[in-house]
Amino acid sequence: MTFEEWMRAVLARVETALEHYLPGPDVLPDRLHEAMRYAVLGGGKRVRPLLCHAAGELTGARAESLEAASAALEMIHVYSLVHDDMPCMDDDALRRGKPTVHVQYDEPTALLVGDALQSQAFVALTDSAALALPAQAALVRELALASGSVGMAGGQAIDLASVGLKLTRPELETMHRMKTGALLRASVRMGALAGTTPDAGALQALDAYAAAVGLAFQVVDDILDVTTDSATLGKTAGKDAKDGKPTYVSILGLDASRALAAQLRRDAHDALAPFGERAQRLAELADLVVNRVS
Amino acid sequence: MTFEEWMRAVLARVETALEHYLPGPDVLPDRLHEAMRYAVLGGGKRVRPLLCHAAGELTGARAESLEAASAALEMIHVYSLVHDDMPCMDDDALRRGKPTVHVQYDEPTALLVGDALQSQAFVALTDSAALALPAQAALVRELALASGSVGMAGGQAIDLASVGLKLTRPELETMHRMKTGALLRASVRMGALAGTTPDAGALQALDAYAAAVGLAFQVVDDILDVTTDSATLGKTAGKDAKDGKPTYVSILGLDASRALAAQLRRDAHDALAPFGERAQRLAELADLVVNRVS
Repeated sequence: MTFEEWMRAVLARVETALEHYLPGPDVLPDRLHEAMRYAVLGGGKRVRPLLCHAAGELTGARAESLEAASAALEMIHVYSLVHDDMPCMDDDALRRGKPTVHVQYDEPTALLVGDALQSQAFVALTDSAALALPAQAALVRELALASGSVGMAGGQAIDLASVGLKLTRPELETMHRMKTGALLRASVRMGALAGTTPDAGALQALDAYAAAVGLAFQVVDDILDVTTDSATLGKTAGKDAKDGKPTYVSILGLDASRALAAQLRRDAHDALAPFGERAQRLAELADLVVNRVS
Repeated sequence: MTFEEWMRAVLARVETALEHYLPGPDVLPDRLHEAMRYAVLGGGKRVRPLLCHAAGELTGARAESLEAASAALEMIHVYSLVHDDMPCMDDDALRRGKPTVHVQYDEPTALLVGDALQSQAFVALTDSAALALPAQAALVRELALASGSVGMAGGQAIDLASVGLKLTRPELETMHRMKTGALLRASVRMGALAGTTPDAGALQALDAYAAAVGLAFQVVDDILDVTTDSATLGKTAGKDAKDGKPTYVSILGLDASRALAAQLRRDAHDALAPFGERAQRLAELADLVVNRVS
């Protein structure tokens, strides 16, 4: 199977899983459920589900387990986008090429969509048809820590506090390691933990891989923000500079940022060495993250 | 031990547990953690932790298990208060006798405090020092379903959509069963499930008890909203009428609402009959909910 065929197959399964784990648009309260589905379905690069599936192949995880874990990861990711786009945060009108939830619906609905998507992620992870009880508990803990105040939400708080400040590169790295890195790392770990429990060495190697990919993802995001138009990105381009947010491009410049992304791609590949051929999909995903154009 | 002594002991343990399960104010990002602690600690009636502890006594649950479950329940409850108080929702300035989080800090912080408290609840429930793995998974599912779009967040969506409408009594009941009832029911169920797994009959009796107490809680809330001042309530009084929200008092009148609360108290006691003396604390909590003055 080529990488493209593998990706297409995983993306189709993830979309079906999200359909399955989101309450139907006819379930009361129907407008809220319709808005949750509007936010989640039919868009996005699904980077976290792809990482989760690729890592799960290393530990022989069942397809149902990876689908539940992927649905949970994507719901957490989308909830964070919906809340970040709200007027009191980034106040953005465009996401995944569509009007943001608070524009399409209204602000209270956007707030509740995010809140309910977070809960629904934990509903998905406790589906006993997909995951054994001990795996459910382990995955819930990974996801809760990665998305909370010492992970994604905490990184978002640091991001907001840093507007207009001149961060050092280590400070910028801490912020991104929490804001986007924690959930990307959890994607890899949750995929691996959904199968035969990996040993400490394997988890450490996967953590190193995820750290490199996570940072690369952010560096590329910063590059694309200044080099690509909104139509291609599906979200408002040039926004970080306009909002006075520190980025890799603003700290390092464009060329050094590109060199950093390339280095991080090599670091990700190096971390996978112990797994050999079995980590092929993870290696290809590192390339995808660095070479993407939107 | 008198009921008052039992309550004081439980409340002290719950406060310690919340202290324990919330990241310290010195942990990065410190302002977010300080705001989370401001929202959660040193206030509130802790009705959900009390219900959880009383139900846990029926099934011999360990103190550590009930403390983790109670901390999780209270964090979910407080996150919902913080988000409900935001300007795009109820826009309230006073809560538990203090300025609301968005007033004391700012709107983005209030949004992130709510988001992170929800995650932290699931961190608390997956503390292996407090709960065995199967119980962790069971309690996570109870809490996620009770707080999400078919529970608390869904009820909140219906509440918002009902402003200015004349709801029928069954419609009002559906809304409250989701908005406050679901989490109160989960409090009782999680307490019971933290111990020796109760049989289906016992869980059904506890559900009937929780349904009656949950509705009684709301009826009394509606009564207090028109009969009590803001200083006593610790939140803005008379707000429902001002906001055009349907309440039991607006639909049934004050006298019939009081009669309903008394009937629901009797229903709660009747549901506990199979447990005899062992359900004494639950019975006393039903009385507390109906007889409270704030």
